[in-house]
Amino acid sequence: MQNATTNIKNIAILGSTGSIGTQALEVAAENTNLFKVVLLTANTSADLLIQQAIAFKPAHVAICDESKYDTVKQALAPFDIQVHAGHKAVSQLVTLAEIDTVLTAMVGFAGLESTIAAIQAGKHIALANKETLVVAGELVMALAKKHSVSILPVDSEHSAIFQCLVGEENNSIEKIILTASGGPFRGKDAEFLANVTREDALKHPNWVMGAKITIDSASLMNKGLEVIEAKWLFGLTAEQIDVIVHPQSIIHSMVQFTDGSVKAQMGLPDMKLPIQYALGYPQRIANTYKRFSFTDYPSLTFEQPDLDTFRNLALVFNALEKGGNMPCIVNAANEVAVAAFLDRQIGFLAMSDIIERCMEQINFIAQPALTDYLNTDKQTRIFAQNLIAPLPLKAEQLDNK
Amino acid sequence: MQNATTNIKNIAILGSTGSIGTQALEVAAENTNLFKVVLLTANTSADLLIQQAIAFKPAHVAICDESKYDTVKQALAPFDIQVHAGHKAVSQLVTLAEIDTVLTAMVGFAGLESTIAAIQAGKHIALANKETLVVAGELVMALAKKHSVSILPVDSEHSAIFQCLVGEENNSIEKIILTASGGPFRGKDAEFLANVTREDALKHPNWVMGAKITIDSASLMNKGLEVIEAKWLFGLTAEQIDVIVHPQSIIHSMVQFTDGSVKAQMGLPDMKLPIQYALGYPQRIANTYKRFSFTDYPSLTFEQPDLDTFRNLALVFNALEKGGNMPCIVNAANEVAVAAFLDRQIGFLAMSDIIERCMEQINFIAQPALTDYLNTDKQTRIFAQNLIAPLPLKAEQLDNK
Repeated sequence: MQNATTNIKNIAILGSTGSIGTQALEVAAENTNLFKVVLLTANTSADLLIQQAIAFKPAHVAICDESKYDTVKQALAPFDIQVHAGHKAVSQLVTLAEIDTVLTAMVGFAGLESTIAAIQAGKHIALANKETLVVAGELVMALAKKHSVSILPVDSEHSAIFQCLVGEENNSIEKIILTASGGPFRGKDAEFLANVTREDALKHPNWVMGAKITIDSASLMNKGLEVIEAKWLFGLTAEQIDVIVHPQSIIHSMVQFTDGSVKAQMGLPDMKLPIQYALGYPQRIANTYKRFSFTDYPSLTFEQPDLDTFRNLALVFNALEKGGNMPCIVNAANEVAVAAFLDRQIGFLAMSDIIERCMEQINFIAQPALTDYLNTDKQTRIFAQNLIAPLPLKAEQLDNK
Repeated sequence: MQNATTNIKNIAILGSTGSIGTQALEVAAENTNLFKVVLLTANTSADLLIQQAIAFKPAHVAICDESKYDTVKQALAPFDIQVHAGHKAVSQLVTLAEIDTVLTAMVGFAGLESTIAAIQAGKHIALANKETLVVAGELVMALAKKHSVSILPVDSEHSAIFQCLVGEENNSIEKIILTASGGPFRGKDAEFLANVTREDALKHPNWVMGAKITIDSASLMNKGLEVIEAKWLFGLTAEQIDVIVHPQSIIHSMVQFTDGSVKAQMGLPDMKLPIQYALGYPQRIANTYKRFSFTDYPSLTFEQPDLDTFRNLALVFNALEKGGNMPCIVNAANEVAVAAFLDRQIGFLAMSDIIERCMEQINFIAQPALTDYLNTDKQTRIFAQNLIAPLPLKAEQLDNK
């Protein structure tokens, strides 16, 4: 048993109450011989965070919403668990000496600062917060290299590519092929999209995910963000990244090498697989999850994405071409637009309009530093919010987005 | 240029005038900075061997058919090329000190002895002669381990699996999934098969190959031989090997790991790719071969093989279950049966009948040594030949099959 004990990885889960976070805790619970949870953080879901803390007994928990600190503190008083509050606390807690790997599963731009703090403290990153690389990929990857930490992708597509690349360190990538399910509106035209509701958009055919990412899937922005993420994660140019619609979501993505050989990673759509892979890497962890069978999938189909109707993906490729803070603008505008769509303030097609307007209007910075990213993000949110509801918001209202 | 020179691999191509051999020479010609051909051997095609020798200037050539020695010797007299004849010469030549890698691309059982000689001399093997592992897989893999040589598969299916396994050395295979095109008679019933001709069977939908392997593809025996080969190459049980019919031949095979993740290798059906991979491994060699595109393959389909109609595959799984010399019996009986079918002596379905009769009648040996394999092979050929044309053949007539 001693060997097993020494192989235990201490993990921190940022955003433990979200879809990825809860599934990561299932993985941890299934593999107590491999993982010990030492930190859990949540944005606002105090009740679930309390339940998780009682179940997993991490040394620390943090709730970003400071108004819920007392509730959490009180509920966990009988346990040997330190309770913290606020975003700043998270950025400090990720540097704790006992942490080996930080799973960044919080939603949106809020993930950037704590991810950077973790990298600087030499922690390996299981990356589920795609905005980290979307907004500041160049900076983050350079930091990871400097501190010799691994960035292990949790997104099923990037995990697929990562898995295809193991053992191919000396071989060159010709291109990667990101698969997209096409979402609930695949094959629909703009007229149809003009009238879809929040409920329509939340019905994803294959994956069970949080609301933000489900809307992003319906609008293909999710694929756009993944294109940017892949660019930084694997050191590619935009021209080396293809997107193909694959409605069955069985092939999770592919790599084509310079000899023309293509490697693909496949399986049933189940986020626990890439979560487990990222936490366990380089060791695959045996499990009894349901297996893929061709009997259930006698045909795998592929089609080109419709960039005229689903404009977000085209906007992303434009942003990548411009570079600089442009992907950061796209991401911030999209976060505001999705929130407004979920809040029934705007229609489905207006999301692309807002992103496009922001790309035209926000100051372009060719070589942004971290503070430039933070400012671009804030400026873009204010501008986008004003496009939706032209009331001057105070900056404080934007801080906890 | 000096670095390039020192990285050159000296290769021997056994069976250089066959389909794999000629394509291997194309690869060598395209990559003179990587490969130097030092030995070419052919069974009977003296004219092509002479042409190849003049083009590639190997130090040695051998023609197995001793009656053609004078022709080859005379034609190559003006060049600094040593000419040899006979099977025994091949087994000696593969041990030459200057050879790094031996590509075993000769057809049938004849490949076993020279492959063993090459392994014992410490040469890496690019294995295209599947009978080597089919007949004596246990023995050959043990030898390869003992002499620390790599067995690099050239078959597209095994190359696919090998490619999926790089970097996964510490992870366990749950199963492999060998893909089969299904051949020209996919979906046909026994009544149809009873009347097919040699010409029908030689029309393979996807791959251009030699006659023997094309017939084996039509009868699914090729897949059966690959199942046996895979068992030994990757250290699997028969239960860990699935066969799925995939008519487009784009996914060349797959590996499922114990975490449920499946990796696949894909590409257009082109044997030069796995040849190049086996010769260049671990380095992939950039090329400009035509690339696979989903535009041309919008749908990849999969179906279970029909083992009732295509009995060979079922016979192979039976043989694997029995073990010992049983796969050797299957292989020898099949070689005789295919030759008789190509010679219009028997019908398509009779091939399975002959194999089954041999499996029932030839002495079973649970733990055969090399001499047992040689005897089993000879006995089976005589017995199978008698089933076809009941005339007593002399043993000498079987030697050069």
